[in-house]
Amino acid sequence: MAISEAKKGLGFVSPNPAVGCVFLDKDNHLRSVGYHRSYGGPHAEVEAHGKVQNLESLVGGKAIVTLEPCSHFGKTPPCADLLSRLSLSEVHYGLRDPNPLVSGRGLRKLEESGVKVFSAPKDLESSLKELVEIFYLNQTEKRCFVGLKVASSLDGQMSLPSGDSQWITGPLAREKSHFLRAYFGAVLTTASSVMRDNSSLNSRVEPFHDKEIPVFLIDRKGRSADFLQDSKLLEVRDAKSLYVFTSQDHLKSYTCLPTSQVIDLKSDSDRDQLREIFKFVTHLGFSSLMIEAGPQFTSLILRENLYDRLDLFVGPKVLGAHLKTSWTKGLEFSNMDQVLSFESAEPKTLGGDIWISARNPSAFFDSKL
Amino acid sequence: MAISEAKKGLGFVSPNPAVGCVFLDKDNHLRSVGYHRSYGGPHAEVEAHGKVQNLESLVGGKAIVTLEPCSHFGKTPPCADLLSRLSLSEVHYGLRDPNPLVSGRGLRKLEESGVKVFSAPKDLESSLKELVEIFYLNQTEKRCFVGLKVASSLDGQMSLPSGDSQWITGPLAREKSHFLRAYFGAVLTTASSVMRDNSSLNSRVEPFHDKEIPVFLIDRKGRSADFLQDSKLLEVRDAKSLYVFTSQDHLKSYTCLPTSQVIDLKSDSDRDQLREIFKFVTHLGFSSLMIEAGPQFTSLILRENLYDRLDLFVGPKVLGAHLKTSWTKGLEFSNMDQVLSFESAEPKTLGGDIWISARNPSAFFDSKL
Repeated sequence: MAISEAKKGLGFVSPNPAVGCVFLDKDNHLRSVGYHRSYGGPHAEVEAHGKVQNLESLVGGKAIVTLEPCSHFGKTPPCADLLSRLSLSEVHYGLRDPNPLVSGRGLRKLEESGVKVFSAPKDLESSLKELVEIFYLNQTEKRCFVGLKVASSLDGQMSLPSGDSQWITGPLAREKSHFLRAYFGAVLTTASSVMRDNSSLNSRVEPFHDKEIPVFLIDRKGRSADFLQDSKLLEVRDAKSLYVFTSQDHLKSYTCLPTSQVIDLKSDSDRDQLREIFKFVTHLGFSSLMIEAGPQFTSLILRENLYDRLDLFVGPKVLGAHLKTSWTKGLEFSNMDQVLSFESAEPKTLGGDIWISARNPSAFFDSKL
Repeated sequence: MAISEAKKGLGFVSPNPAVGCVFLDKDNHLRSVGYHRSYGGPHAEVEAHGKVQNLESLVGGKAIVTLEPCSHFGKTPPCADLLSRLSLSEVHYGLRDPNPLVSGRGLRKLEESGVKVFSAPKDLESSLKELVEIFYLNQTEKRCFVGLKVASSLDGQMSLPSGDSQWITGPLAREKSHFLRAYFGAVLTTASSVMRDNSSLNSRVEPFHDKEIPVFLIDRKGRSADFLQDSKLLEVRDAKSLYVFTSQDHLKSYTCLPTSQVIDLKSDSDRDQLREIFKFVTHLGFSSLMIEAGPQFTSLILRENLYDRLDLFVGPKVLGAHLKTSWTKGLEFSNMDQVLSFESAEPKTLGGDIWISARNPSAFFDSKL
């Protein structure tokens, strides 16, 4: 229950982790639930606490939280102190705080107040980690979390050679990918991808209709400068939510954007340019972004191993194999031990489509961005 | 229950359909179950009837059968007569007999004897059809049913460019494909595929370990003539269960096989040769076969639209796109309305793998083979 509470905050809490909290009384009756609703707002414990009608009812009761209660004064006072004052008998927590400087402190505070502290059952671990994966990576790697979204046919095609791809996947898969735009909070794409579909790249799914999704656009040759003026990209979002990475020669071409949002890519190699981009996005304060582009750029990201998570949607269609439209061209492996393997990612079905959400434990962004 | 009984006969009953039968007494208590166990053996109704301890208990009871009870004397007397004599109150049947000459006759016999006859609920239809799909197609099209099995990575690759493909899919998927060999009862493959893996193409899964799976091998250039002598193909099966299709020049090269099993392919075009093969297999009395071959032959079958069912196993791996190893190369579609679509085939998961079993309603084998 605490996990499903926490999930309600996904897409709203970043750069904070999603957290859920449940209070039970001494007879294990439910007294309240709460979750962290938005960055800067009350923590899950405070939310749930505020909804308890009679605080006396919690004496000898339990709190169940998906993440170790905080022990420090941030935007809100420490939740470990709040829980300590309630005369609970037990606190059950999901994961520890990823920051080694504070990890375990909240738990210690609770134990010192006489509360028994228990960790979550092992089988909840992967669900608990999903709630905080962006936050954890931000803390440990000091860079934004990079998602890669791909929609493909059964035979690995992102479109027909003509460019037609509407629709390889069905409405449920498309809804899920709209959710992912909100979850990651920003999209990185290329000029050719945006110009082909005139896509708006917003999140047309409840409850994210009003959420602005910033877009980072790679356009080294300045090809989209005129196109952007009347594009859907700028129809559905403020110009301040669009950033273009281009080359020196084209910096002045994007008259529809503030100059601070047109960025000169200085490096020569693809890989170095990508690292420039991720560094820029991280420094702007973004905790994550999702890459949504065509086969050329998608396979580059795979080759360079610059992604933390792959969300692959496979529609039950066969388009016929062509290199130009394959999402993995240019990947070269000489034996089966080397291939990318997503064995721990359980495939799910979404209508007739398949959704595989895989983590890349060996993403390689180099030591420092 | 009748359907799951029927399934026990799959892989043993061909060219008969798989049928299951359940008897209930007047209080809807289960009295017996039975299924058609093997070609030539008793029908499901007779099996279940033989297991009823006290036939009086069926008076006013029900029979539930997956297929219309037969009305003619074949290898066994008509089941409709048997059911008519039991003073049942109701018979519930799954599908009608596909043969227009006898379809409905069994039901009429039952009604004339005073039994109420009911058809199965609509939502069971696809499960019921699966039990008899080979039999139905044999009856209506007078040719063998052709299955196409493919094992591929997430990006549509059947192997690495080196030929290495062990293992793209996991043990559960491989077990299912061994079941399919027994279910289809014969395998059609190519010399290059067999020579690459030295595969045995038998069914190493219970209860089919002892079942001989005949193999039809296409080898127009006689390349496998020497290879076959010490091949696993002939290690695990009798020489009489191996047929080779080759060209005039190589008829005498296969010294390990009886001459009647080395067949001269007379046609020039791929399509005509394939039709020769399916005609030969049908005339030998085979009701179905499964194609298991490499990307070249697999994509030829897809292009020529010469398959009734596709069983696609997708392993959670990314191998990198290459045309040579893609299972759908050479398929050309100019818009999304034309692509192969398997929307009604619900994907299933087998461990970390995905299994899609799709029917091809527009298979085109020409009017007569």
